[in-house]
Amino acid sequence: MEKNQTEKNEQKKLRFECDYLEGAVPEIMQRLAETNLVQTPGYSEDDYCESAREKIRVLLDCEDAAVHFLVGGTQTNLTVICAALRPHQGVIAASTGHINVHETGAIEASGHKVLTVPGKDGRLNAGQIEELCRSHYADSSFEHMVQPGMVYISYPTEYGTLYTKEELQKIHDVCRKYDMPLFIDGARLGYGLMSHACDLTISELAKLCEVFYIGGTKCGALFGEAVVIRDERLKKDFRYLIKQRGGMLAKGRLLGLQFDTLFTDELYFRVCKKADRLAQKLRSAFEQKGYPMLVDSPTNQQFPVLLDAEAERLAEQFSFSFWEKVDETHSAVRFCTSWATTEEAVERLIAAL
Amino acid sequence: MEKNQTEKNEQKKLRFECDYLEGAVPEIMQRLAETNLVQTPGYSEDDYCESAREKIRVLLDCEDAAVHFLVGGTQTNLTVICAALRPHQGVIAASTGHINVHETGAIEASGHKVLTVPGKDGRLNAGQIEELCRSHYADSSFEHMVQPGMVYISYPTEYGTLYTKEELQKIHDVCRKYDMPLFIDGARLGYGLMSHACDLTISELAKLCEVFYIGGTKCGALFGEAVVIRDERLKKDFRYLIKQRGGMLAKGRLLGLQFDTLFTDELYFRVCKKADRLAQKLRSAFEQKGYPMLVDSPTNQQFPVLLDAEAERLAEQFSFSFWEKVDETHSAVRFCTSWATTEEAVERLIAAL
Amino acid sequence: MEKNQTEKNEQKKLRFECDYLEGAVPEIMQRLAETNLVQTPGYSEDDYCESAREKIRVLLDCEDAAVHFLVGGTQTNLTVICAALRPHQGVIAASTGHINVHETGAIEASGHKVLTVPGKDGRLNAGQIEELCRSHYADSSFEHMVQPGMVYISYPTEYGTLYTKEELQKIHDVCRKYDMPLFIDGARLGYGLMSHACDLTISELAKLCEVFYIGGTKCGALFGEAVVIRDERLKKDFRYLIKQRGGMLAKGRLLGLQFDTLFTDELYFRVCKKADRLAQKLRSAFEQKGYPMLVDSPTNQQFPVLLDAEAERLAEQFSFSFWEKVDETHSAVRFCTSWATTEEAVERLIAAL
Amino acid sequence: MEKNQTEKNEQKKLRFECDYLEGAVPEIMQRLAETNLVQTPGYSEDDYCESAREKIRVLLDCEDAAVHFLVGGTQTNLTVICAALRPHQGVIAASTGHINVHETGAIEASGHKVLTVPGKDGRLNAGQIEELCRSHYADSSFEHMVQPGMVYISYPTEYGTLYTKEELQKIHDVCRKYDMPLFIDGARLGYGLMSHACDLTISELAKLCEVFYIGGTKCGALFGEAVVIRDERLKKDFRYLIKQRGGMLAKGRLLGLQFDTLFTDELYFRVCKKADRLAQKLRSAFEQKGYPMLVDSPTNQQFPVLLDAEAERLAEQFSFSFWEKVDETHSAVRFCTSWATTEEAVERLIAAL
Repeated sequence: MEKNQTEKNEQKKLRFECDYLEGAVPEIMQRLAETNLVQTPGYSEDDYCESAREKIRVLLDCEDAAVHFLVGGTQTNLTVICAALRPHQGVIAASTGHINVHETGAIEASGHKVLTVPGKDGRLNAGQIEELCRSHYADSSFEHMVQPGMVYISYPTEYGTLYTKEELQKIHDVCRKYDMPLFIDGARLGYGLMSHACDLTISELAKLCEVFYIGGTKCGALFGEAVVIRDERLKKDFRYLIKQRGGMLAKGRLLGLQFDTLFTDELYFRVCKKADRLAQKLRSAFEQKGYPMLVDSPTNQQFPVLLDAEAERLAEQFSFSFWEKVDETHSAVRFCTSWATTEEAVERLIAAL
Repeated sequence: MEKNQTEKNEQKKLRFECDYLEGAVPEIMQRLAETNLVQTPGYSEDDYCESAREKIRVLLDCEDAAVHFLVGGTQTNLTVICAALRPHQGVIAASTGHINVHETGAIEASGHKVLTVPGKDGRLNAGQIEELCRSHYADSSFEHMVQPGMVYISYPTEYGTLYTKEELQKIHDVCRKYDMPLFIDGARLGYGLMSHACDLTISELAKLCEVFYIGGTKCGALFGEAVVIRDERLKKDFRYLIKQRGGMLAKGRLLGLQFDTLFTDELYFRVCKKADRLAQKLRSAFEQKGYPMLVDSPTNQQFPVLLDAEAERLAEQFSFSFWEKVDETHSAVRFCTSWATTEEAVERLIAAL
Repeated sequence: MEKNQTEKNEQKKLRFECDYLEGAVPEIMQRLAETNLVQTPGYSEDDYCESAREKIRVLLDCEDAAVHFLVGGTQTNLTVICAALRPHQGVIAASTGHINVHETGAIEASGHKVLTVPGKDGRLNAGQIEELCRSHYADSSFEHMVQPGMVYISYPTEYGTLYTKEELQKIHDVCRKYDMPLFIDGARLGYGLMSHACDLTISELAKLCEVFYIGGTKCGALFGEAVVIRDERLKKDFRYLIKQRGGMLAKGRLLGLQFDTLFTDELYFRVCKKADRLAQKLRSAFEQKGYPMLVDSPTNQQFPVLLDAEAERLAEQFSFSFWEKVDETHSAVRFCTSWATTEEAVERLIAAL
Repeated sequence: MEKNQTEKNEQKKLRFECDYLEGAVPEIMQRLAETNLVQTPGYSEDDYCESAREKIRVLLDCEDAAVHFLVGGTQTNLTVICAALRPHQGVIAASTGHINVHETGAIEASGHKVLTVPGKDGRLNAGQIEELCRSHYADSSFEHMVQPGMVYISYPTEYGTLYTKEELQKIHDVCRKYDMPLFIDGARLGYGLMSHACDLTISELAKLCEVFYIGGTKCGALFGEAVVIRDERLKKDFRYLIKQRGGMLAKGRLLGLQFDTLFTDELYFRVCKKADRLAQKLRSAFEQKGYPMLVDSPTNQQFPVLLDAEAERLAEQFSFSFWEKVDETHSAVRFCTSWATTEEAVERLIAAL
């Protein structure tokens, strides 16, 4: 009986622990319903996918970019990375990078080491990459060590932080110098681009890397990530790799339809912008109540530091993620907003602080 | 302009080339819409998934079976197989098996050889498995050869054919003798179980193998496959592997909801039964017109042998798959029905023969 | 006691079951002894290796060939193949090829499918390769299938047979057409080149492929294989791959010394020529006694077909390998000669027939 | 011409940069010569191997240990580790561990992450392992992270340091608690066991882990490592894995003969003891001249810190390894002794300080 009570409470909570708590934006649900009985060929060779690809190419001003749709982020990361690397190469990433921490070793399972450098609030910088490469080739035993073959960064990072255009430019320059493709994980890309702190456009971002993906799952879609490839070597035979790694959806039209909808009337950007605004509202409230923030995040993830006792009290009404212990009595936790977060939900949370 | 005309015709065609041409059964679409704004935890740890798991366990009369949901078939096959095998082991399959032919080497990419035996209409038999194992262990160089570690069969097979209960029992006995799990790929399971030629229940099938999956993508769902594991060794840590191989859907509830719906009021079986009936109707029509069938398929895939000229003529109005050349002037082609096929569509096709 | 007797007999037998029964040619043993205390850098960066590389380049008339030394054949095959292929590619081989049968799935363990074609006496032909490639690219689902990325042949084959220069030329032409490197496994290369049936030189062979190896283990060395690479893409970073796959010998000088010795005064060719001659002598004896040969092998492996009872009788005094059952009462067996086989040993065997 | 002069000087130098500069102890060279023409079966199924295995089992007082012979260290590490782990598991190691730094990602190439903890002078401790495991299982997202599945340590470490018996016992206890095999890399095992600072026997060490190897390459053999397995799960089918990973030497007798010789009359221990003594003599000399040591190594590797100018001067007559920059003007370098190092060579080096 007590357990049932707990479960019931659990279900009544307002949830903020991540940005994939609900289904999809209503426009997507409606379009899926409308087209449900239309017959299309499989494997993303349908018109909806083609339309979505074209919209993305126009948006990016990259008419020869290859655009592919995959279902989820881990799958996308492992497919892109194993497509780009030869067996003796590894991928440079911040030690906090998603591929290093939260994908159960998917990159290693495809044969490659993640070459970590300590991040700062989730970011690595051009100097660290340069130093890693320089010291690799300077070592007389370099052939006994994994060769740096690619750079992976997240935009925004796992800590909600962003790179400036200049920082990206410098990272890209180092990548070019050492002939390594730069791959940007955009699982939450929309929240990054719509942030008040963002100083670049999606088209500029596309040109500062060889490959990136536009996250759908966390930005309004039911699921789906759109990989954009500008590098010719990576474009070659990429569909074989999607299939081999289990990422080719039979009813690929579901992916095309969703991205086509998100990139109609700037829906993608509008829903992310609203989530960013609500996250900043939440942050201001935390700061006004005197809670420090673990990092300075200008996007939809916020990391306040709470007394453990306060966290427990809040957890009775709201769900959020434990992030890390800060000291004996305090922890950083994570609250996320998303396209689905309402003004009212945020206000209820603020009232409870 | 001509191209446009061609494309337009292409779009007007009635399509029969596969069983994943449309979205999902209306009951699923409705339920997705209704629950769209409900908040749930991610990664299939929600109540919809739990409800679907419980319904499947009850249906199978296997209360301690582990049930996991993945997005697609290739992903499911590679995850199950790499979970079961040690590095020096391979999986026995018919040479026509999906894992051997149409998954771009996904099994090999996870490190394992597919040990093929020639199939008969897509089926292998207990004697072939026994002989492969016996001769492996009898060879003085057995350690220089891949050890048979698992058996993979499809039910129905890629040719639409079925195993009898007795055949399955014998295959399972050999598997037990050599301590190899038996894995049944049920991408089209519903069409098999609802066939007039089927002599077993889903609960019986579950007990004649260590692991199998209930296909959703081709049997009424938007996407999704439900893996059922009865072997304790395979159950252990399986979720790590789903995550590592890119198969863990963030919004796992989408999978749970679909299977929960399909296993409410026997919807899964009803829609497959109808498709089987329409396929047999189509088959009778082909036979009455004197077309031979490549194989005797009692399920939703039919493989008539057509004169190449006839095939071309039919292709003006209908889409279907080329299967294989039979002789200089004839080819076998594939027509599929699905939950979405209408009586009217089949009649239009029959009229055109 | 009986067991001891059996073992004693076993030790007294004259052995013919393979061509790696003894140590190395005396010239190698002497040179190893002489240089034992010389200090050299590790990992094949010593002068002995450099000298051997240079001798091989001169011999092949390929001054820009890359030459690397590895310890054994399986290691060599897996390292070369995984260096050449992208993840979605497989290697075409005869179904009897060593990589397909007797390397415990080493190629699959590195992620790649072996795409088999039925061999004839161990050989495949240009037409088969052409057909496999043509039908791959003609299939509308080609991205769902493993892409042919390389061709592997053995010279001599596992059945002792050879390709003519014209056959090799045709195979190489197909490989060039489809941009696939041709890799020749030369585990027994010396026995092939010295055969009366051989119509090409080692220098010609080198130019009919992108990469091949000169077998040492079975041709006079204690161990060691010399990989010769002519393709620029494959040359790049090859030492990283040798190290990663466990093939970089710390005391690499041992490999250099052996190949340097073998390619001094044509020692490699002289010892193989003698073995070929003794094998043909053995073959003639078998044929004169009326035993059919399983294949027409002009090299150091001979495959007579014996009555099982005769085989048992012979096995009391000689060791040889069981190869395959030919019918209820007959089996093909394998006798090998090597650099170490003596005239006297062959005569004793002939006398016993 | 200048280059020639440099090369000539290079060849005259006394070399101390590693412990694999020469061939093998004379006893091995003699025995190889004596047995060169003896015929034996291949793949370590000969009497020499069996004799060596038996001697090792007796030495360890582990009559049911499995003993296998491989050619080199990287190969041994990757074979043991991939034999022990399931795909979602990683191996815990010090960040300075050989598998993490100097094997070109061999472990990742076999699919597994190296889970690093910061070492102290090359050592990790039980507390670090416990904490890594505890926090893994305490994390609510543990299935999204690589599961710790094995622990790898080196004895001696890459810095020449040792674990005490008590430290090993504690590490082993944690391993047992979390059901992880403990693997000890004994590439330089003899130098560790013969150190004045060592407080355990080889038999005790064998019982404090599930698997370890006795290094031959760096301890008197031409090449070769003897893997000792006490864990039943790891024993199963280990030879398949040796073959698959390219480590099964055709003329396996060469490995058996060497280990049989090394474990006759304690030769292995005698040659290592001498090398340890010479290393300590060298160390005392460095310390007397006022050079600090980077670490307190009681074994055959010594790491003095030199002014860069001094290092350059010494390098004219002696070769040694650069290890790491200590500050702007100083570097730590490595000098190794081995079974082959002479008293005279050490004295010449000391005189030059």
